[in-house]
Amino acid sequence: MPAADLLITNGTVLTMDADGRVLPEGFVAVCRERIAALGDLAAAAAWTAPRTLDAGGGLILPGLVNTHTHAAMTCFRGLADDLPLMTWLHEHIFPAEARLDREIVGMGTRLACAEMILSGTTCFCDMYLFEDAVAEAAREAGMRAVVGEVLYDFPSPHYGPPEAGLEFTRMLMDRWRDDPLIRVAVEPHSPYLCAPGLLQEAAGLARANGAGLVIHLAETAAEVATTRERYGRTPVGHLASLGILGPDLLACHCVVLTPQDMDLLAAHDVKVAHNAESNMKLASGVAPIPELLSRGVCVGLGTDGCASNNNLDLFGEMDTVAKLHKVHTLDPTVLDAPTVLRMATIDGARALGLAGSIGSLEPGKLADLIVVDTHQPHLTPLYHPASQLVYAARGGDVRHTVIHGRPVMVDRRLTTLPLDDLLTEVRRWSRTLMPGAGGPGAG
Amino acid sequence: MPAADLLITNGTVLTMDADGRVLPEGFVAVCRERIAALGDLAAAAAWTAPRTLDAGGGLILPGLVNTHTHAAMTCFRGLADDLPLMTWLHEHIFPAEARLDREIVGMGTRLACAEMILSGTTCFCDMYLFEDAVAEAAREAGMRAVVGEVLYDFPSPHYGPPEAGLEFTRMLMDRWRDDPLIRVAVEPHSPYLCAPGLLQEAAGLARANGAGLVIHLAETAAEVATTRERYGRTPVGHLASLGILGPDLLACHCVVLTPQDMDLLAAHDVKVAHNAESNMKLASGVAPIPELLSRGVCVGLGTDGCASNNNLDLFGEMDTVAKLHKVHTLDPTVLDAPTVLRMATIDGARALGLAGSIGSLEPGKLADLIVVDTHQPHLTPLYHPASQLVYAARGGDVRHTVIHGRPVMVDRRLTTLPLDDLLTEVRRWSRTLMPGAGGPGAG
Repeated sequence: MPAADLLITNGTVLTMDADGRVLPEGFVAVCRERIAALGDLAAAAAWTAPRTLDAGGGLILPGLVNTHTHAAMTCFRGLADDLPLMTWLHEHIFPAEARLDREIVGMGTRLACAEMILSGTTCFCDMYLFEDAVAEAAREAGMRAVVGEVLYDFPSPHYGPPEAGLEFTRMLMDRWRDDPLIRVAVEPHSPYLCAPGLLQEAAGLARANGAGLVIHLAETAAEVATTRERYGRTPVGHLASLGILGPDLLACHCVVLTPQDMDLLAAHDVKVAHNAESNMKLASGVAPIPELLSRGVCVGLGTDGCASNNNLDLFGEMDTVAKLHKVHTLDPTVLDAPTVLRMATIDGARALGLAGSIGSLEPGKLADLIVVDTHQPHLTPLYHPASQLVYAARGGDVRHTVIHGRPVMVDRRLTTLPLDDLLTEVRRWSRTLMPGAGGPGAG
Repeated sequence: MPAADLLITNGTVLTMDADGRVLPEGFVAVCRERIAALGDLAAAAAWTAPRTLDAGGGLILPGLVNTHTHAAMTCFRGLADDLPLMTWLHEHIFPAEARLDREIVGMGTRLACAEMILSGTTCFCDMYLFEDAVAEAAREAGMRAVVGEVLYDFPSPHYGPPEAGLEFTRMLMDRWRDDPLIRVAVEPHSPYLCAPGLLQEAAGLARANGAGLVIHLAETAAEVATTRERYGRTPVGHLASLGILGPDLLACHCVVLTPQDMDLLAAHDVKVAHNAESNMKLASGVAPIPELLSRGVCVGLGTDGCASNNNLDLFGEMDTVAKLHKVHTLDPTVLDAPTVLRMATIDGARALGLAGSIGSLEPGKLADLIVVDTHQPHLTPLYHPASQLVYAARGGDVRHTVIHGRPVMVDRRLTTLPLDDLLTEVRRWSRTLMPGAGGPGAG
């Protein structure tokens, strides 16, 4: 009788593998951090394990992958909304960020991890300040993360002068090299905040270390205009001319693209992180995702930070993505539910260079998976699992979350973070930012 | 010491009254079906009541109003998605609807009521077949509803020939005239499925009885083209020429409008039900809501039916509405959170002609209210309640729901409907529609 460490039973298993296999009454067996087997319920009886998670007749699927966020910005959730971009940034976000330190970034990231685990996200890619604190918070929460300190041409409130940013990234790489959950990427902010020299140094550092390279790219028309003016090229064309496009590059946003830009992204196998809700809320525009997909570009989903969303719920994001592109192209057949579910799982993993180890449920892969409780009115009846997950489910419907073989949420209770203490801590700190509290908003 | 029947305490009260009053630490006292008083926590101590609902430091606000749905279509949630409109309608929805009867409509409506109560909706406006069954199901669930049998030029699977539809509506009005929860409206389907004579008879019946008039209007470009061809006018212009526009008319969708149409809607004080997610999913287009609001038109929110959404969660709908119009107009300041929250509460009530009795928390109004549990990572920190409700909260965050003074959900448990039995019943029935089950989809 084969022995596992953990069994997840009594659910429909959506493997998200290359064949899109669905096991209507299935189970997953986990040995240490890896998937040992999956199959139908009859085969489950052959397995023993000290621990079983009952899916209660619900759906078992890979954990969702958030390919772009600034986790610690949970601290600024709803601090300022519905404002012109420059007012929002200069009068609210930048002054608030000037007060950040390691502790606050750690606190905000723990809050983000709690929210992500509770809404079925098991892996996220982060860009922010004090990324050592982000990595430590993710580690504490038991989450998988790709972290990278943001690099730009001006002094950082964290590491100081620009050259120190690359040095800090090198240090991060050394520190987390053998970690099972944390990967370090090199993350220049954008072509408009990074001079060509910094971009090339960053790419060189990434490639010398086999690390990913993450950048904001072509997010707004203003950015494209600036880049054209400065370099005579679109942001994508500019990166191409610098030799920076490649399969290890994750380009976040890609809202304002020419057909030539899209061809370049496809030709270099650049990965794209699509942040539909943030792009909507900031009125940046609608990224041409159907056109990118038709060129074979790999697109994952991201929530962006909580100041421009204002949540980290990838279920809500899937719903929005599937609907937004239909109305934008006036074609109800684009971005169907199975496609969007792949974007949130296996394609997200591919975008982060992790498709060999996560993103689908297959023997040998790491056990990052979630269970969705479908015994609820808004998920009944259930004709097609992918449709239900994309168009009807919400983060709160996730019942269990397993990362790296470890149950980090069981029956909606976090096992890794002290939730009440964390909420109290964030609430207390947030009062210092409120009007009248003498925070930066008060001048 | 004043005595109430029910106290809701320990929360921030968003009254949604004309002054937008917010009571940071407040309470609401309910006597029978009405709000007797509200105030700050200190004043609550003066009240006694046999029953108290603890808001747990969360938000207390009016129940949300769904101004347009086809409740029983929960039965078809996710049955067919991502298809061209005509394929979807003729190969999936119409064949499935041909199998409807009173019992199935009742079952689907009970499911819809369960979902709505669990996601904070306390009142809905319905258009469908067998609306007597809809009214009975809403009554059983303890929900407030405006119901109306759909009228069109061809025979109905329910009442038969067109003339019987008006007769049935008359009967519905008689049957429910004195009901505290149910109102009956007259509901011709649309200008393209109703000849001018039927539209005028319907309007006459509504106006003779002081009832509301509900219609689908200008939902798609194809409808506008058809109406122009047939009558030489836009759908709105056509209704104007028939004398049907008026303050008692609720026009659902209004996606494809000319500036003249918008002026007509404003001039006649026509109310609009905006169904953003359905319009997105069916690729109908984006209704010009900012332009309608700038003309002073009253706009409520609707989810439309579950076959084209696929949920009845008005929290998700608020989020989508606030973001969609920003990206559509490329202006991040349009439809700010307070505006969208008003659309989902007091303006929705106004759209249904019920603003005198529901839609805000004020002494003397009927006690339709909800409590949102903010003690959760995705609702922390909390700088601005309206922002949190629109951009971060989801239906599952509603903890208590009170309708007409009666707690119909307490701590996420429905008090009126036997949920497990209902889910089992729907699931069993839905199997008859599945591929291979010999249902209409199987040819």
